Amino acid sequence: MKPNHWNDFETYNERCLLKLDQARSTGRFIVGVYCIFAPVELIRAAGGISVGLCGKKPDPIARAEEELPANLCPLIKSSYGYAASDTCPYFAASDVIVGETTCDGKKKMFELLGRIKPLHMMYLPSNMEASHALDFWRKELERFRMFLEERFGVSVTGEALFRQIRLTNRIQKEFRRLIEHHRSCRLPVSGGELLVVLETRGFIVDPEAYLHHLETLNAEVEALPVVEARAGMPRILLTGTPVGKGSDKVIRILENAGTVVIVQENCTGMKSLFYPIDEEVAAADPMQALAMRYLQLPCSCMSPNPNRFRLLEHFIRNFGIQGVVDMTWQCCHTYNIEAFSVKRHIEERFHIPVLHLETDYSTSDIGQLETRIEAFVERIRSG
Amino acid sequence: MKPNHWNDFETYNERCLLKLDQARSTGRFIVGVYCIFAPVELIRAAGGISVGLCGKKPDPIARAEEELPANLCPLIKSSYGYAASDTCPYFAASDVIVGETTCDGKKKMFELLGRIKPLHMMYLPSNMEASHALDFWRKELERFRMFLEERFGVSVTGEALFRQIRLTNRIQKEFRRLIEHHRSCRLPVSGGELLVVLETRGFIVDPEAYLHHLETLNAEVEALPVVEARAGMPRILLTGTPVGKGSDKVIRILENAGTVVIVQENCTGMKSLFYPIDEEVAAADPMQALAMRYLQLPCSCMSPNPNRFRLLEHFIRNFGIQGVVDMTWQCCHTYNIEAFSVKRHIEERFHIPVLHLETDYSTSDIGQLETRIEAFVERIRSG
Repeated sequence: MKPNHWNDFETYNERCLLKLDQARSTGRFIVGVYCIFAPVELIRAAGGISVGLCGKKPDPIARAEEELPANLCPLIKSSYGYAASDTCPYFAASDVIVGETTCDGKKKMFELLGRIKPLHMMYLPSNMEASHALDFWRKELERFRMFLEERFGVSVTGEALFRQIRLTNRIQKEFRRLIEHHRSCRLPVSGGELLVVLETRGFIVDPEAYLHHLETLNAEVEALPVVEARAGMPRILLTGTPVGKGSDKVIRILENAGTVVIVQENCTGMKSLFYPIDEEVAAADPMQALAMRYLQLPCSCMSPNPNRFRLLEHFIRNFGIQGVVDMTWQCCHTYNIEAFSVKRHIEERFHIPVLHLETDYSTSDIGQLETRIEAFVERIRSG
Repeated sequence: MKPNHWNDFETYNERCLLKLDQARSTGRFIVGVYCIFAPVELIRAAGGISVGLCGKKPDPIARAEEELPANLCPLIKSSYGYAASDTCPYFAASDVIVGETTCDGKKKMFELLGRIKPLHMMYLPSNMEASHALDFWRKELERFRMFLEERFGVSVTGEALFRQIRLTNRIQKEFRRLIEHHRSCRLPVSGGELLVVLETRGFIVDPEAYLHHLETLNAEVEALPVVEARAGMPRILLTGTPVGKGSDKVIRILENAGTVVIVQENCTGMKSLFYPIDEEVAAADPMQALAMRYLQLPCSCMSPNPNRFRLLEHFIRNFGIQGVVDMTWQCCHTYNIEAFSVKRHIEERFHIPVLHLETDYSTSDIGQLETRIEAFVERIRSG
């Protein structure tokens, strides 16, 4: 049985639009974001609300393909299609949008998106290790802060930023706690159900209230008995490109095949939860702490991307992972190429099966995916 | 009739390997490069020779697809395939290779290439306008200089660098002179033939001798009579991704259809020829002059990329262009997305037809390309 407070999160996004309307009527502004590299602490410290705008459904893709190439990541096409067809209420509610140069497709798509809505671009270096890359990225954060201050006539104080940094850290800690319950099977939900809760992070209107809800949920879960409801089900780690309601076909097929998706190592899942912002640095220099933290995120846009391999190892070792599915959206070159190294690394080090899938938002390959995933699950069961 | 000295260039690359062998025997080192962002002046000032390694032929692609995704730019796959199958004598001759983060595909491909040959990565910012991007890029140039100095036990003096900067400027000036003859039809060669000469720039062993050859060729051409041999042939500008011997099917189809490809606005063609290095800055600070110049190159990896639009306008206005073909290699997201803006910009401003083609190194679409190009040429003739 699911915890009672689970429902608060399952219906969270539906209530979000109403909350956004209320917040706007009190003078707050809304920033649309498309990436976990968008520094939400800065937006919140400036008095704004960030909402995630990445498209997860295939419906707006046809509209996008009037301007974008067909042979492009479905997430990018879906995101652009929503904007171009004006069919996303969150996009409509956003005062401005912030883009990042994480990948070629998004970078150039944002040039077109900037014609529809005021856009601020952040230039992300793809080197997480060099000190001049950190300096550059910090300057990009400063530039974003100035953009917010000028655009909305506000001032971002160090104090407000530090407060938001601590709030983010506490929210992420609560998510790690929740995931720990998922790991131990105390939280009796599927990976698909967990995703619904994880997705609510993109729509936080009031971070303190959100944190409180999470704490309440965790406290309730901790009072539940541990039931080995999923004993014997292969434990899967899903890695790769982001997944959401509407683009979760691989999770659904995996769980219909009798597995449980214990870990989602992607940016809609748990990728960003293991990089707390250094509060000691933040107390003295919150912008520096932000810059340091965001540059550590293990996205495949980084080259090399050692943190992703470390994070995968952590999950495989500590979450009892028996098989890895690496899912790449069509034409996402960075994840698609990194898939080769990920597969080799995991197979050599852990001797568990790795399945790499390249797919899109359509339903046309579902039969083929089912066949491949069933064979993969069979390998785990017999392995 | 072609000028007598044309033959020196047509056979240049064949003789290059012998020259490379000779140079190596005198202790010189060879740096393999994959991009016009690679600062050849630094390599030469360090006593090295740069050779271009971008794959132009389909043969090694099957080998590359053992590790790289099939749905990737053929140039990247061809380049990697040559290295992985050890079938490129220039790759074999290279002591080290230098990569740049110009696009997602190359960036991640270089991670794999670095296992085969010592690799130095340069992190290119995609913002050509911000001062902190220039600072960052200068630091990347400094890092490359230190790499060369340490690796080969040499010292790059400001004097040597300034000398190479001036040589590059003079070589580019000679190419602009040659292109001017091509524009005016004094140089009676096709676009495909011109490409062969342009390609020799990637294999310059002795820049002074190379400059001398170019000057001699230009002097000879200037003594030829102007013959309107191509009067009435539609004058085409080809833009987009790079083209070389082996990947020149679109040029061949265009010229077989009775047009002349007057301009090649791509990195194997004329894209880099219109950005001289500022010698006044270079006299005081050659590294700064290099950084400034390279960051102005109008590659679609830049966002925004205003210089490309300016360069296209320059060519269309001054080279009597009647139609534009924008060719994108499969899955090159930056050029593929920018194609939308290029087409709209040119059609609105110049009212000439623009044809966008996405293709690869195979021959399978040649019939289809011929049909589309013939219809395009018909539009020009009847326009």
